[in-house]
Amino acid sequence: MEIHYLDNSATTAVSKAAADKAYAVMTGDFGNPSSLHGLGLKAELAVEDARQTIAGALGVQPKNIIFTSGGTEANNTVLFGAADALKRRGKRVIVSAVEHSSVYESAKRLSEIGYDVQFAPVNSDGVVCLDKLSDLLTCQTVLVSVMAVNNETGSVQPTEAIAKLIKKRSPNAYFHVDAVQAFCKMPLKPAKWGVDFMTVSAHKIHGPKGIGTVYMREGARITPLLYGGEQQKKLRPGTESAPLIAAFGQAVREADVAADSAVVRELNAYALEKLGAVDGVTLNSPSGALPYIINLSVEGIRSETMLHHLEREYGVYVSSSSACGKGKPSYVLKAMGLSAGRIDSAVRISFCRHSTKADVDALVEGLQSGLKNLQKVRS
Amino acid sequence: MEIHYLDNSATTAVSKAAADKAYAVMTGDFGNPSSLHGLGLKAELAVEDARQTIAGALGVQPKNIIFTSGGTEANNTVLFGAADALKRRGKRVIVSAVEHSSVYESAKRLSEIGYDVQFAPVNSDGVVCLDKLSDLLTCQTVLVSVMAVNNETGSVQPTEAIAKLIKKRSPNAYFHVDAVQAFCKMPLKPAKWGVDFMTVSAHKIHGPKGIGTVYMREGARITPLLYGGEQQKKLRPGTESAPLIAAFGQAVREADVAADSAVVRELNAYALEKLGAVDGVTLNSPSGALPYIINLSVEGIRSETMLHHLEREYGVYVSSSSACGKGKPSYVLKAMGLSAGRIDSAVRISFCRHSTKADVDALVEGLQSGLKNLQKVRS
Repeated sequence: MEIHYLDNSATTAVSKAAADKAYAVMTGDFGNPSSLHGLGLKAELAVEDARQTIAGALGVQPKNIIFTSGGTEANNTVLFGAADALKRRGKRVIVSAVEHSSVYESAKRLSEIGYDVQFAPVNSDGVVCLDKLSDLLTCQTVLVSVMAVNNETGSVQPTEAIAKLIKKRSPNAYFHVDAVQAFCKMPLKPAKWGVDFMTVSAHKIHGPKGIGTVYMREGARITPLLYGGEQQKKLRPGTESAPLIAAFGQAVREADVAADSAVVRELNAYALEKLGAVDGVTLNSPSGALPYIINLSVEGIRSETMLHHLEREYGVYVSSSSACGKGKPSYVLKAMGLSAGRIDSAVRISFCRHSTKADVDALVEGLQSGLKNLQKVRS
Repeated sequence: MEIHYLDNSATTAVSKAAADKAYAVMTGDFGNPSSLHGLGLKAELAVEDARQTIAGALGVQPKNIIFTSGGTEANNTVLFGAADALKRRGKRVIVSAVEHSSVYESAKRLSEIGYDVQFAPVNSDGVVCLDKLSDLLTCQTVLVSVMAVNNETGSVQPTEAIAKLIKKRSPNAYFHVDAVQAFCKMPLKPAKWGVDFMTVSAHKIHGPKGIGTVYMREGARITPLLYGGEQQKKLRPGTESAPLIAAFGQAVREADVAADSAVVRELNAYALEKLGAVDGVTLNSPSGALPYIINLSVEGIRSETMLHHLEREYGVYVSSSSACGKGKPSYVLKAMGLSAGRIDSAVRISFCRHSTKADVDALVEGLQSGLKNLQKVRS
């Protein structure tokens, strides 16, 4: 059966050029980037070349990019590192109620170890309520973390407006933006927007799993999460994974925010039109969502039941909520005020630049046949 | 010029089969191991297959293996995680004076945040003095960390004897063994020896950079270093780097402790004989060292000067001390009581199973010509 992979927000296929790059560095430029000899230097150059590419995509300086083992470590580095660095200024940490688990659970841990953690509510579009956030912003606030794009719904947060609000109400606070789902999919300008930390990951943009980065504004401080060698100014020690870093750089080089977005925007419009004609399907993504993600609920059919039907009968791969949740009910949709029935029947479709109308057609056909044939749950 | 790579303790070339495996998982089984569909399952199977191989090599259960981004994260996970988990029992943490920086610097950080950290001294062979360690072991001791094999000298620690001593003197304490330089190079039996945590890394055994593991004894506890999704029982969340994990498994499958050791032992004997005949070369590795590493000093010639000479004129790649130290003077050799002159002129040669007599010949020739032609420093 043909595969219709529509789970690109969980992970993407590594591009051939990125995989080739990783392979070349593994077998050719295999030195330790910290070694003082020529083979070490070659590996270091591969790392620095990628650092420059990624910095360029964010419009920042390469020296302000730190490599981590992925989005989760990147987000943990900022949450724990920034909160610790500023702990003498205050103990309040604010994160939105719809953050990815790597921010959300880190915030809960910060609360356990003595921080005053507040969860900023969102409206029914999944967008942070600025007035409610404003009320939470005190002069004791040291860190605010709000993602650029939600991983389950595609809801886009007003990053620049939030940055301005923080500057005004909590001038001592750092602002972190988890941009894992936004990177290479919309313009990101952390330096211009007044963002102190921005985190991204390779495997959502056709790079390999196991590599991510933190952008740190010049002058911003963190207490490191890891201790060890002299790598990365001791902010993130450990031998750099030169193959993955080089592959990440290659994946970024292949992305074209404007062109890719245009392709996906058209596909999104096509999908919304077809989905709108299916009785029993309700859209959960707001109208302003990033076109890469469509979250919907299928009346009376549990997410997992529909997922298996779509995969088995139509070769369509989607997810219930986030992959990291492994099937747990979505706290994101709950924070948006959705009913239990809508949450239990949620399906996330996520595109990449290679997704096609044939993928959407297979999805819609599968949803229709599921609605007709699958056993319904009383709501 | 032919390359004579004798810096395998810094890093190794990834084997073709391991690199092929990483490539296949990147481009083929690219799903997210946490995804509930078939592509996720394929990636999960690749991860679990490697977990089983690595567990097998350590003689432990797969469920007791946690994947991390490498040796540094693995060591940090144990140092901070175990110390935190047992902090109500006591605050003493003991590490040897010759630990890798990822243990050594973590211990220094533990001291900064309120732990009573003690550094166990070593004798002139770089081996922990059991009587002095015994004196440090109190009932307040919660964690002892002693590496299996030193990364600069190859000194082998009496792991089993240390485990017994800890059980007797500090029954509440966990015992951690950093086995990064020992894995696949000597028999390791953490479960039999009474080791609670053992950490290893892929890139020292022809696997890729960016992946390592922690073995955790059943029932041992840690506070996680990272917070996020449901992966790895929440002990180490974050999307698993399935390509690197699969490649790590492949590298372990290709290793043959007995056969590889026999090859390297013979080469080591050949090297020691030839080096013994060179006037001005003093051995720093003790007689019982692992044959994979030879540390020596070259009278009157700074390490970096000799390194560059060997590389430029003979294509021989070695290192001064550890790669992670980036050329800083070695605290390991200092702890062994070596003079400043010996430390400043130290050279580490490290073999792998593919190293040859031709590599050793080139090295010896290079050392001899260096001794003859390079400018000497007054000691």
